[in-house]
Amino acid sequence: MPEFFINRNNIETGEIIFIYEETAFSGVKKIAHKVRQDVSHVFDAMPQTRDIPADGVSTEQTEASICNIFSGAKYPVIYGTVGRSPLLDELDVRGIIKLDDIRGKREVYSFTVAAEPFAGVEAALIIAGSDKRGTIYGLFHLSDILKVSPLTDWCDIMPDKMTELILTAEDGHTSKEPSVRYRGFFINDEWPAFGNWTNKNFGGFNADMYEHVFELLLRLKGNYMWPAMWTAIFPDDGPGLKNAELADELGVVMGMSHHEPCLRQGEEYKYLRGPESIYGDAWDFRKNEEGITRFWEDGLKRGGHFENVITVGMRGEFDSTIMGEDATLKDNIDLLRDVLKTQNRLIRENVNEDIDKVPRMLALYKEVEPFFYGDGVTEGLMDSPELEGVTLMLCDDNFGNLRTLPTEHMREHNGGYGMYYHFDYHGWPVSYEWVNSTYLPKVWEQMTTAYEFGIRDLWIVNVGDIFTTEYPLSYFLSLAYDYEKWGISNLNSVDEFNKEFIEMQFGNSMDAAAKKTMTELLKGYTRIANNRRPEAMNDGIYHAVNYGELEDLSVRITELMETADNVSALCDESNAFTFFQLIGYPLIATLNLTKLWLATTENHYLTEIGASMAGKLAGEARTGLALDRALTDKLHELRDGKWYGMGMSEHIGFRNWNEEECRFPVLYENEPSNKARLVVTIPGTDQHTEGSVWTGKKLILPDFLDPSCDNARITLYTTGRGSADYEVKCDASWLEISALKGSCPGAFCEVVYIKCKRENIPGNMSDRASDSTSGNVSNNVSYTASDSVPAVIVIHSEYGDTEITVPVNCADYAQLPANTYVWCGYNDEKIEYRPYNYISIEAEHFATSNSTDAGHFVKLKDYGRTLSAMKAFPVTESFEPAKNAPSLDYLVYVDKEDEYEVTVYSAPCNPVSMDNKLRYGISSAAGNVAGTCKWDEEIETVDTVPEDFRVGDNQEFWAFGVLDNIRVSLARLILTAGLNTVRLFAMDPGFVPEKIVIREAGTRIPESYLGPKETFRTVSEEE
Amino acid sequence: MPEFFINRNNIETGEIIFIYEETAFSGVKKIAHKVRQDVSHVFDAMPQTRDIPADGVSTEQTEASICNIFSGAKYPVIYGTVGRSPLLDELDVRGIIKLDDIRGKREVYSFTVAAEPFAGVEAALIIAGSDKRGTIYGLFHLSDILKVSPLTDWCDIMPDKMTELILTAEDGHTSKEPSVRYRGFFINDEWPAFGNWTNKNFGGFNADMYEHVFELLLRLKGNYMWPAMWTAIFPDDGPGLKNAELADELGVVMGMSHHEPCLRQGEEYKYLRGPESIYGDAWDFRKNEEGITRFWEDGLKRGGHFENVITVGMRGEFDSTIMGEDATLKDNIDLLRDVLKTQNRLIRENVNEDIDKVPRMLALYKEVEPFFYGDGVTEGLMDSPELEGVTLMLCDDNFGNLRTLPTEHMREHNGGYGMYYHFDYHGWPVSYEWVNSTYLPKVWEQMTTAYEFGIRDLWIVNVGDIFTTEYPLSYFLSLAYDYEKWGISNLNSVDEFNKEFIEMQFGNSMDAAAKKTMTELLKGYTRIANNRRPEAMNDGIYHAVNYGELEDLSVRITELMETADNVSALCDESNAFTFFQLIGYPLIATLNLTKLWLATTENHYLTEIGASMAGKLAGEARTGLALDRALTDKLHELRDGKWYGMGMSEHIGFRNWNEEECRFPVLYENEPSNKARLVVTIPGTDQHTEGSVWTGKKLILPDFLDPSCDNARITLYTTGRGSADYEVKCDASWLEISALKGSCPGAFCEVVYIKCKRENIPGNMSDRASDSTSGNVSNNVSYTASDSVPAVIVIHSEYGDTEITVPVNCADYAQLPANTYVWCGYNDEKIEYRPYNYISIEAEHFATSNSTDAGHFVKLKDYGRTLSAMKAFPVTESFEPAKNAPSLDYLVYVDKEDEYEVTVYSAPCNPVSMDNKLRYGISSAAGNVAGTCKWDEEIETVDTVPEDFRVGDNQEFWAFGVLDNIRVSLARLILTAGLNTVRLFAMDPGFVPEKIVIREAGTRIPESYLGPKETFRTVSEEE
Repeated sequence: MPEFFINRNNIETGEIIFIYEETAFSGVKKIAHKVRQDVSHVFDAMPQTRDIPADGVSTEQTEASICNIFSGAKYPVIYGTVGRSPLLDELDVRGIIKLDDIRGKREVYSFTVAAEPFAGVEAALIIAGSDKRGTIYGLFHLSDILKVSPLTDWCDIMPDKMTELILTAEDGHTSKEPSVRYRGFFINDEWPAFGNWTNKNFGGFNADMYEHVFELLLRLKGNYMWPAMWTAIFPDDGPGLKNAELADELGVVMGMSHHEPCLRQGEEYKYLRGPESIYGDAWDFRKNEEGITRFWEDGLKRGGHFENVITVGMRGEFDSTIMGEDATLKDNIDLLRDVLKTQNRLIRENVNEDIDKVPRMLALYKEVEPFFYGDGVTEGLMDSPELEGVTLMLCDDNFGNLRTLPTEHMREHNGGYGMYYHFDYHGWPVSYEWVNSTYLPKVWEQMTTAYEFGIRDLWIVNVGDIFTTEYPLSYFLSLAYDYEKWGISNLNSVDEFNKEFIEMQFGNSMDAAAKKTMTELLKGYTRIANNRRPEAMNDGIYHAVNYGELEDLSVRITELMETADNVSALCDESNAFTFFQLIGYPLIATLNLTKLWLATTENHYLTEIGASMAGKLAGEARTGLALDRALTDKLHELRDGKWYGMGMSEHIGFRNWNEEECRFPVLYENEPSNKARLVVTIPGTDQHTEGSVWTGKKLILPDFLDPSCDNARITLYTTGRGSADYEVKCDASWLEISALKGSCPGAFCEVVYIKCKRENIPGNMSDRASDSTSGNVSNNVSYTASDSVPAVIVIHSEYGDTEITVPVNCADYAQLPANTYVWCGYNDEKIEYRPYNYISIEAEHFATSNSTDAGHFVKLKDYGRTLSAMKAFPVTESFEPAKNAPSLDYLVYVDKEDEYEVTVYSAPCNPVSMDNKLRYGISSAAGNVAGTCKWDEEIETVDTVPEDFRVGDNQEFWAFGVLDNIRVSLARLILTAGLNTVRLFAMDPGFVPEKIVIREAGTRIPESYLGPKETFRTVSEEE
Repeated sequence: MPEFFINRNNIETGEIIFIYEETAFSGVKKIAHKVRQDVSHVFDAMPQTRDIPADGVSTEQTEASICNIFSGAKYPVIYGTVGRSPLLDELDVRGIIKLDDIRGKREVYSFTVAAEPFAGVEAALIIAGSDKRGTIYGLFHLSDILKVSPLTDWCDIMPDKMTELILTAEDGHTSKEPSVRYRGFFINDEWPAFGNWTNKNFGGFNADMYEHVFELLLRLKGNYMWPAMWTAIFPDDGPGLKNAELADELGVVMGMSHHEPCLRQGEEYKYLRGPESIYGDAWDFRKNEEGITRFWEDGLKRGGHFENVITVGMRGEFDSTIMGEDATLKDNIDLLRDVLKTQNRLIRENVNEDIDKVPRMLALYKEVEPFFYGDGVTEGLMDSPELEGVTLMLCDDNFGNLRTLPTEHMREHNGGYGMYYHFDYHGWPVSYEWVNSTYLPKVWEQMTTAYEFGIRDLWIVNVGDIFTTEYPLSYFLSLAYDYEKWGISNLNSVDEFNKEFIEMQFGNSMDAAAKKTMTELLKGYTRIANNRRPEAMNDGIYHAVNYGELEDLSVRITELMETADNVSALCDESNAFTFFQLIGYPLIATLNLTKLWLATTENHYLTEIGASMAGKLAGEARTGLALDRALTDKLHELRDGKWYGMGMSEHIGFRNWNEEECRFPVLYENEPSNKARLVVTIPGTDQHTEGSVWTGKKLILPDFLDPSCDNARITLYTTGRGSADYEVKCDASWLEISALKGSCPGAFCEVVYIKCKRENIPGNMSDRASDSTSGNVSNNVSYTASDSVPAVIVIHSEYGDTEITVPVNCADYAQLPANTYVWCGYNDEKIEYRPYNYISIEAEHFATSNSTDAGHFVKLKDYGRTLSAMKAFPVTESFEPAKNAPSLDYLVYVDKEDEYEVTVYSAPCNPVSMDNKLRYGISSAAGNVAGTCKWDEEIETVDTVPEDFRVGDNQEFWAFGVLDNIRVSLARLILTAGLNTVRLFAMDPGFVPEKIVIREAGTRIPESYLGPKETFRTVSEEE
């Protein structure tokens, strides 16, 4: 077994040698140098190099001569590209490597450890690339083995030191072709953050900066990028062509944004146009065909010899429509066809006669989409000869949800398909560009769908300023490079990726527990940011009290922020920096912002109910604002301003889609009342009263209606500056009350804890129930939620008495099937609040999942806003309920027969086809018929989007979906008293249910952002 | 000519003597003592007294004996009551006075200065009363002559010193019978203020306290009162019967509140009832007839021998309905009839066989009203024998607006009518009980109406805690006592009363200018409080910016508060105290409260537009809250707590009809933005913008569309902590701009003043107009508001540019008739704001008032919310438009023929009759036909109240009226282009128009509380 040793000693003695062949691509040599540096970081010693002239090695060469070349190099690192390396050819001839394994393949390398390939050489590491990028990926594979992070250069992440690395033949392998042909990212929305950053650190959008960007791309196994374009001109800022030349040298395929055809940036026309300009003075192919054509031609002449994916087509300036609002569809299609004809001609003339060899891309973005599809009257550009060989780039809705996807017919298009995806967006309804808010389970769900629908030629993601999106970008490029590993077959693999990602950055320098915590932090903050992106957050999102959603989130945020601080404290300086930039900063930044809004919401609510504690919340919001500023300052100062500028975007209190006229939270200040009145509230509900004679109202403590709940709280506030004394009176011996009297402080609250001892309730229903029911559960068995007489708690204070009814559910539901949701509602005419007037179901808690030959449901772990989601596979399939549709059965047990409204919360996906539907089927039957495949009941088909659903600017329905990250649809069912089966059928691709809420028709349930928390269900067997 | 000298010398030498006859009413003697004290206050010497035994003077007596009696008393004050004074009888015999002039009359006195009535007596002052109260009023007439304030005792107001008072025969006169038989007030809603006050100062609701209350009543020439009744029992708190005995002694006729029959207070039943009680345990005449009857009987036995107006009838406890919600009208009427029968029997048996001699009162209050009127099916109690001789007490709507009034038929009722009026109310929609908020012009308008409708037997007013309502109470009792002087014939006499009122309190100790200022302060604060009572004030009342109503009010308040401070500074300690309690305290209390709400409103608005100056307004609101507290503290501490307790009621931030759960203003705190952005606003409008690229909008400066306006403002704010620089750019040479650049400070605003020099406008329309029009104005002459090209002002700042269009109206309207309202609107599609899209008319600015034989309109000066109001006389009359109705003509000049909506703002009066209508007529004609009596145009009849209009709890329409102190109704008119006459016809009594606003049908005008400010009109000849 050959063994290739790398250690400091054999580096310093020159036994480890990087071979530089004269014939090698200069870009490959540059990468080799970066890998040498990686080696030096690991071993604290820089491997020496040895140049080999073009004729240095060949079969004509004598063995001695070859031996001479390797003299002293006991462990050479040999690398090269098929056709550019005599050394590899010689090794191939010698049978040490098999170039045929990689020859002609796309971006493939072989990685071989060979014993004594040449005389005097103990063992060689041989990296052979099928092409330039194959070689580069092969070289970086060594870095991977050395546990050097792909972010090493971009984020200054230093690898762990090693004493020795021993490579054996078993480390050898031949890589696969990347799953997606063009994989890359787009620097966009680059002011004020990226722009100030690069101006400070590099003096502009030049090659000094791009070298780092390209290295980041290549180390992440990407190969494609769109340059910054708000004020920058990539082909001119290098300075001159240096940017483009460097990209080409390093094997980076350049594209330009979707509306910048023929290798010319939008900014260019702006400063080249004019009445005297050879390019004319109108971005209008009809009025200024000559000028525009010349503009394009000169672009192709300038950059056509580099490796590009040339954008074709034409859009208006600044992301606008091209022909104005008055033009007909036909006008537009005709124009676009003429444009394409001209562009294809220019490409043939200036780039390659064989246009099929020239990668070209047309973006079906925003208004271009209908030009492609046409309508009943006008044929679209689909299948036009002008688009032959052109990659058709589809786009998400700017918020990470795919739009229409290729039909089976369309998938035959010989240019293939691309996807323009967003981790950052500057536009309506609310921009998100300040800090990462992308959540990987969603990316997995959407991008695997894209791949399954045949979008495999080009994946590009808008990463804004790059900074803080390194994490989702790493994922995106991993998925694009190795779909086999991360794709559809690896369900719920984000945790695995997170583990690898943290491992890459921290290696062994942090212990396993800390690294595990880091993965939880990554998931934690991105899930919260995904539920509501920071810029779209405000004081009107999470409800102050209903269902305790604000309190839960606030607790969760505090926990995550404290954990982040604790983990950071475990880090040495270097890891602390890595942690800060990759986890700590985006985590604190997003969570602190969310938290300060929550504090504002609570400040407003407490003010509304008159609680003096509102002031404390205002203080918390102020602290949050101060932390936000301090965090930006810290970011800008760290490591001499390495990230200077990256925190400059406004991000709090957007009032428009962009930062214009943004406002910080408005905090409410409420002068305490003259009298210290007591406000009694029931957590999780908006019940509150001062109990005063005329205006006081009765409250209800609903918690014990949930049979699984034994602990509840009553929260007291005062309206005054001073404290308010209170007494708690209760006759029920089965309630344990934490304090029977006390004093509620002026600036804070007082919590009275109530413990329910069901076993002490006289004639406890649970006894009765287990007495009276004997095994068989039928629809006629009555499990009433509240047969016991409710207890009454009175809170007495100087200015009021509050009566709180405490109903308790003692029923025993042991005889019901597992996962049966039980109605826990309770009505008392004298009490305004109606507790549990709904059943709330997490989609994964079905009783039975019914598969068919056509498909089956899978669980998407951690997906969505609360627990998880369900999705029908195959993801490309459409199903017919009661024919071939897979379905999910839920068991619900209700008190009375009635019509019920069912709210289904599903992911805000968009319809995948032009028929513009996103449907599911729903039905119900009496009793537990879960799992019975036959279904005779009437099935309601519900479309989760309206008939005129559209994505885009001013489309309110769509906008609510992407801002709230949920879509809510309504169905109606008849349920019988007792047990019922509710069945949900898959229909259109993209239906991803998360939560199901059932209430009596015509009733309202308390408002909230996330919807009601899951209600009581009988325990499933696994749990 | 006899001369009666009073000076310190003749008092000290005993020449001035008060005669005390043994036969005189003890109450009269007590009053005489108070008058002696008044004399001593004026002359710093207490007149001596001389007792005369019952047989001391008679015609049988020798002259010498009489001479002996008066020995040394050169100037005796002789007073007595017909039938109770041998001395008066002797003077009558001697022909010195004529008792026949007063004998048998009601509450009349003669006041005579007689030379040498007896030997040795230089001159006597002889006060003879027709009855006890006549004598008392006569005695107090001397106090009046001494310029002793009727409030002297109640408010510790000391009269000016005099050197000498000389009375001659010319000072003699015989008083008239008071206009209203029973005139008094009701102490009510007495906790926490009055209750704490009397507990501290007198130890309870006892005779020590009531003596002061009775003195106040009598000095104000009242004779009737209802005692406090929330926790007090008048007939038992004296202690014992002392209260009732004192009242009777002093000639105060006692009543009890409208639901306390047979001289028993509601509180009494509460503590006497019980299972063992002889009165039973139910306030239910059906279930507990025996107990209730006994309860009443014992009340009559206890107090029936005192002078009372006995309340009859029955209501539920605590102001509630008597029979519950389910009882029918007939059930109720039958019950009430039985109750009355029983009560009449009890009164006959226990008070007076001749029941006609017993003043009785039934209140037609709230739900009792329908029992009186009945309905189509059930006859009401009207004209029942049970009500024979019973005074029927009608009531206002608790907010100073009369309800139904006696029809001509009803006026024949032999018990006459009473009115229960409110200066204080504890109830829905919002209580007002903290401080005086009653405005006299409204009292005049309503109470003269009551009198004209025949309500002349009983006037009682709820004065709450008395304190601060002394001013309207003085007016109310003056009006009731001397309707001839202050009533319907003395239009707009409030200013005269105010002058007298101030004169009474300050005499000559303040100069005329200061006293005039005080009358303006009284009018000033009460008018503002009348526009919105303090407890009903909040941050959502006056609009922050529209029409500048908030700014105007704020300026006015500041002016009044400063003036009050200045006047107070002119006062010595004694006058300062008088000023504080009568003017300063209620003025500052109400205005400061209003102002702190205005500051809150502005704080919210400025926060909304992001202006950092919001913080300054929050500070002002906080200062207001602190002042409010300080003011209460001062009130409670002054003169050893003379008014301790009177400031204890909560009064800020009512959230319910009472103080429960009240909240102080919520102030908004807005962290300044990171960038110091500039906010440009146009005062008087809600236009504001930061001028940023995407969200900025165009503004308009509308002021110069008003031809009479030459000066306008632009107000700038910044959103940041620091200052924001700005530049003003404008090409129009005819606009003078106060500053072309400057810096808007962070915490304040910056005002740019714009002056319009119309004479510099090229081709000024006013030149052209006077060229082209030659005298005759026809409907076809076009006076367009804005033929000139508008100027444009651009405000430039670092983060935005704001374009402000400045249209100007140069038309010359000199040819139009006087008082023509001209349309000044201006439309620019690019600008959202539509300036002057309405005409606003103050009702008094009619072109012609058309009288008929049946009636005519009069102007009510200072009435209502803005300028004044108009009212048709006679006030009892109903009119028919185009037949006998008086009308008002308004001239309006509009740009285009169209349908217009006319909003008529009128006083929130209630319909006076059971047909429940409050209508006016409106119509229009082309051209100026004002004054032409014939009217052929179609007349729209508008009812200002809805068909189902009702007064009372939960009647939202009515509630808005009384809270806003306005009623708004809508009419539609067609106007032609050019000049139009709009005619308003009187119809039902109670229609009191204040303002008329005309806008194009279907358009909206900016919201406000007071409605749009009056718009441009051609100058009337008088002005």
